This record gives sequence, structure tokens and C-alpha cells, in this order.
Amino acid sequence: MTSHCALLLTPGPLTTAASTREAMLRDWGSREPDFIALTRRLRSQLLDVIGTPSGYAAVPLQGSGTYAIEATLSTLLGPRDRLLVMSNGVYGKRIATIAERLGHSLIVIDTDETAALDPQKLDAELAADSQISHVAMAHGETSSGRINPIEPIVEVVASHGRALLIDAMSTFGAIPIDVENSPIAAVIASSNKCLEGVPGIGFAIARISDLQRATGVSRSLSLDLHAQWRGFEGNGQWRFTPPVQVIAAAVEALNLHASEGGVSARHARYAKRAERLVRTMESMGLEALLPADARGPCIVAFRTPEDLSSKFEILIDHLRAVGIAIYPGKLTVADTFRIGCMGAFDGSAWERFFDCFGAALCKAGWRQEAALAGLGE
Amino acid sequence: MTSHCALLLTPGPLTTAASTREAMLRDWGSREPDFIALTRRLRSQLLDVIGTPSGYAAVPLQGSGTYAIEATLSTLLGPRDRLLVMSNGVYGKRIATIAERLGHSLIVIDTDETAALDPQKLDAELAADSQISHVAMAHGETSSGRINPIEPIVEVVASHGRALLIDAMSTFGAIPIDVENSPIAAVIASSNKCLEGVPGIGFAIARISDLQRATGVSRSLSLDLHAQWRGFEGNGQWRFTPPVQVIAAAVEALNLHASEGGVSARHARYAKRAERLVRTMESMGLEALLPADARGPCIVAFRTPEDLSSKFEILIDHLRAVGIAIYPGKLTVADTFRIGCMGAFDGSAWERFFDCFGAALCKAGWRQEAALAGLGE
Repeated sequence: MTSHCALLLTPGPLTTAASTREAMLRDWGSREPDFIALTRRLRSQLLDVIGTPSGYAAVPLQGSGTYAIEATLSTLLGPRDRLLVMSNGVYGKRIATIAERLGHSLIVIDTDETAALDPQKLDAELAADSQISHVAMAHGETSSGRINPIEPIVEVVASHGRALLIDAMSTFGAIPIDVENSPIAAVIASSNKCLEGVPGIGFAIARISDLQRATGVSRSLSLDLHAQWRGFEGNGQWRFTPPVQVIAAAVEALNLHASEGGVSARHARYAKRAERLVRTMESMGLEALLPADARGPCIVAFRTPEDLSSKFEILIDHLRAVGIAIYPGKLTVADTFRIGCMGAFDGSAWERFFDCFGAALCKAGWRQEAALAGLGE
Repeated sequence: MTSHCALLLTPGPLTTAASTREAMLRDWGSREPDFIALTRRLRSQLLDVIGTPSGYAAVPLQGSGTYAIEATLSTLLGPRDRLLVMSNGVYGKRIATIAERLGHSLIVIDTDETAALDPQKLDAELAADSQISHVAMAHGETSSGRINPIEPIVEVVASHGRALLIDAMSTFGAIPIDVENSPIAAVIASSNKCLEGVPGIGFAIARISDLQRATGVSRSLSLDLHAQWRGFEGNGQWRFTPPVQVIAAAVEALNLHASEGGVSARHARYAKRAERLVRTMESMGLEALLPADARGPCIVAFRTPEDLSSKFEILIDHLRAVGIAIYPGKLTVADTFRIGCMGAFDGSAWERFFDCFGAALCKAGWRQEAALAGLGE
């Protein structure tokens, strides 16, 4: 199969707007004044998305979102610090894996993939262990589509006077995050999820006082968030050659984000898609993994019924043949597939997806009647 | 000044071909079969550039070229290894800085920025210190434009049975590198110099036996060359979200590289430009930093005469106003400026540069007659 999929209903990279991709048609000298201005604009736009909190700075970084998480852990945690990771899925675990590889002192509160994070457990751990300096969590657990509410964790972390790191990879730009006057030391995300840019940069919105303290802490020259920030604050430049076209696309994607109406408008667009998605899937006999109050609007995981499981690859191939990409799940506790509601496409593309999905279910030979019931709704 | 420069005569990012940029106009699902095929093609094209040596693999990595150097040092050198860096400029020093930050045992043979690397010194060090496992050097010292010949170093390293790491950032694709049956463990470069792609990925052409030995060596999850290679060899995918558009552009740039006639044709194009450049600059009274046999065809550094030094910013501004970017030097021993001969532009753009450079010298008020002599040649 070498069909090309233009409608990417995956956790990313996503379908982007034509103007976002067209922003990549220019060359840029990365140390030229116009590119320095573009970088300044990017940093201020990223901060705008989160409400321009005082005392925070946006530090973009070459690479994927995982690089930005590693740079944050590598820079903001010193040798005497200890990290507690609240995990209920693959991306929570990844934070722990990065910290472990970096040699950080680490504790993980591992929760079932289908359960919520437990602030009471966190409270008990923080009360018992004064060495824990930082707590980390994934805001959107991309593997299950769960949103882990930040507020209860913020409250506990604040009450113990520790710092909080938030992996907001699949929520930044679509779900509000309030960092002002919080114990949040960094919110980390990337250009190519809810912001609908192309992949190639990650970033941290980091508390300036934490950045200032972190001179020479990172053992990585490349993934040093402090030095990266100093570079931007100094001469406005990236320390190492930046992906200039990706950055131009990010600025255009952020222009579109602002003109759409910011976080609340983006949330509304995705939430509307997610509601329609769950309803349509249910009409075809497919069930969302998580209850409505635990799911986010960005990615929805569905249980793969036993009699569909063996046919799932065929289903995916049929969708691929009509230019639509979806991903299987990434959970260990349940057989699931995931549909991403993020991306720059319109309502008619979404409706077309439902038609194609129903037809693909039929072609895969799964419960013909149930599948057809979802069509032409 | 917010003029936009389309002709980038810098060490990179460079002026790219329209078709290379246009290759970025599509979205790609990074785990889709067509993108896996694109990645396979990229890896095989990168290996082709270096003559498809047996026992080597191309391992592309998200980020800049510096990231790829760090990943190589972080992965191929274990805790018992010792690195000797042969340095005669900023980029040699950067290799040492990365190794130092990573905590590697390190020796630097530091040579003057205007002098050649000394294989005899290397021979003596390797004879005296059996703990040195790896030697590293920059092939093209981007700061001075010097080409450090690989063969004499290869010979010494081979005679002592050690491994060689080559930073070929500003030479890969324009100057041949022979790795077959050599002690070279890795050649490291990026997409956006002589290959004329856009920035966003680096890569190492690494000896497979060295990669195989390096399980779990890197303390970085992101910059782990072994795991990245295993990912490609396993399911053909990038471990973390790749910059899909940058990769599509790299494949198109490599198509253009091959259709131009490969390394020898690219070398000839740059060498012709460099010759014309030095001749024209000389006619204007400007002198190349290095003698002809030490300079490469990719970047040429010129001494900035004392009476031009104070006017240099004005000169750069005048060039910027007509859409041309050049960079000041990066040397400590001499005041220089650098002109990059790399990039996808034609002879008329090169001639226009000379006209604009001469005119900018005049406007900057530097030796009017000398500057005018270079015009209309």
C-alpha cells in the first residue's frame, strides 16, 4: 500500500492548513533580522496561547516534543532533585523513562491506563518524602485520549511547595492551562498537535526563575533549555541551526489559531467533532474507552470489539485507500483504536470520514448491519 | 532592517531549489506506509552519496547537525572510552564541548585556526595513550572554510587500531569521503548544507558493528543513535514524531543531487564558484584567509581589512537591502567575513552578488576605486 493519506485522524503529525504549508515556500537566513523577528513573534505567540502569564518565557527547541520534555527534565532538575511522575499511560511512562535515562532520582505513581490520577496518593507521597522537588504529569494522555485535570494536582503540589512539570503535548492550544500564580515550572508541547503546525519543533513555557537557576545543569549541549533561553534573550537567535521553514509554518499556524478565536474556539471545534464522532461510532456499535467526563476533545480511543480485532488491519487499509489515516491504540489493558479530532479540515471532511469508516467496516466484513446503521445519518 | 534575503551566501541555512521547498506542500502520516517508504528512500540516498559502503547505515535524527554529533558521541562512546579531538576552529572545539558536557574522558589537540591538523602529533598521542578509543575531527572547519584532509588522519588512526568520527557538516555531498575499509565509525552531517535541503534533520552514516555494540549506552532517550537505528531497522519508523515535510524536502534535494551528477558534480559547481569568488574579491583588494590548497569550495573566509572593519555592518546592511545575506567570521585570530558558495542558485545570481558586493563596498565608503575595479569584470 503506497496510498497517500491527506486526512490524518491520528495523534499527529496532522492535516495542516494550506497557508501553513505555503509558509514554508521561502528560504530564511537564520541569523538575519527578519528571522530574529519571526522567532520573537513565535515566542510571543506561544506565550499568548497560555494567556501571557508574567514570569514565564517560551523556549522553542529543535526536534520533536519528546526532545522538549527531555531538555526540560535535563535542565530544570539538578543532581539533588527528585522527580515524582504521575502516570496513567504511555506518555506518563515516557516522562519517567527519560528521567531514568538521565540518571534522575525518580518515583513513579503508576495508575491503571483507564483510571484517573489520584491526588490523594500524591499528597501522601509528598508528605512522606521531602526530597521530591518536582512532580510531572501528562495533561492529555495521548494513548487513551484521557484528560488528566491539572487543578487537583496543582493544589497538592502547591500545598507542599514543590514544582510541577506538565506534558501538554496533545492539549496545548485546545484546552486552557492556567499557570499564573501556580507551582507550574514548565508546560511542554510541540508545534504539530492542537496548534496545527508542522512537526519539527517542541517548546517549553517555563518559569523564568527556574530557568535562571539552571546554568550549566544540563549535561546535553543540544538539549539545554537554559542555554537555549539565554540565546533567545541575548541576541534573539537559536543557538544551533533552526528548521526555519517549520518555524515560519508555526507562526502562520499560530496566526490561524488566534484568528479562529484562540484556545476556546479551538476547543469548541474539536469538542464538536468529538461529540459527533462518539455518537456516530456508537450508532455503528462501537464504544468509547472512557466515559464522557474523562475523555478529551483531541483524541478519542474506542474499544476494538473482539470480532473486529482480526479485521482491523483490513479496515485501516480500506481507509488508507481513500486517503484517511487512523492509528491502532497504544494501550496494554484493552484492544483499542484511536481517532484524532485535531487538524485543519472542515465539517465535510469529517462527514466523509464517517461514510468511509462505515463503508470500510462493511468491506472488512464486520457486522454489516451495525456498520450500515451509522451511514447516512 | 526587516528585508528578506533570498540569496543566502552563509554557512546555512541556504538557498534551496523551488522543487525542494515545494516538496513540503503535503501532509504525511509518519507511521503510514508511504512515509515509511520515504524514510527508507532517504536513508538509502544518504548512503548513496558516500558510495553505499558495506557495513554502514544511515541514521537520520530530528534536530540540527549539532544534535547528530551529540547523539553519535553519546551513543558510540561508552564510559570506558576516551576521545581525542583534533581541533583547528570553532567546530572542532564544539565536538570537544559536547564530549565534555557528556562527561566523556577527553583530550584535545588544539591547533591554530589558520594551521592544518598535525597527524604526527596525533600519532604521538595515540602511541602514548592506549586509553584513547576514538578520534574526532571536523572535515570542513566551517569557521575558516578550511578542509582538513581525512586521509592522513585515517592512516594514523588505522595504524593504532582506534576509531574515527568525522564531522562532515559543511562537506558531505560536495567532497568525497571514503569510509569503506577505514577506521571511520561515523560521518556526521545535516540536510541543509551541501545537500541543499532545508534544516531540521541531521544524520550519521555509522558503522553497523559500532551501532550494534551500543545498546543502552546513551543517557539520552532522544539522542540515542542506537535506538534510532533499531527503530528504522525494525518497523522502518522514526521513534518520535519526525519533521515529515523537512524529510520530503531532503529526499527531493537528494534527487536533485543525484541528477546533477552526485558528489563530483556538486564539487565542481562549488569549486567554480569559489574560484570566481576569490578572483573577484582579490580584484577588489580583498584577500582570502587561507591559501588555495587549504581552502574548500564550500565556504571561503576573507580577511576584513582594518579600514573596512568599522564599516562592515554597513556593508552587510547594504547587501541585505538587495536580498543577499553574508556572515561575519567566527575566528579569534583574525577579523574575517565568510562567503558561502553552497546553495541552489545559478551563475547569474552569483554575478549579481559580485555587482552588489562591489556597490555595497562603495556605499560603505571603503576604498572606492578598489571596490569599483571588481565591478563589470
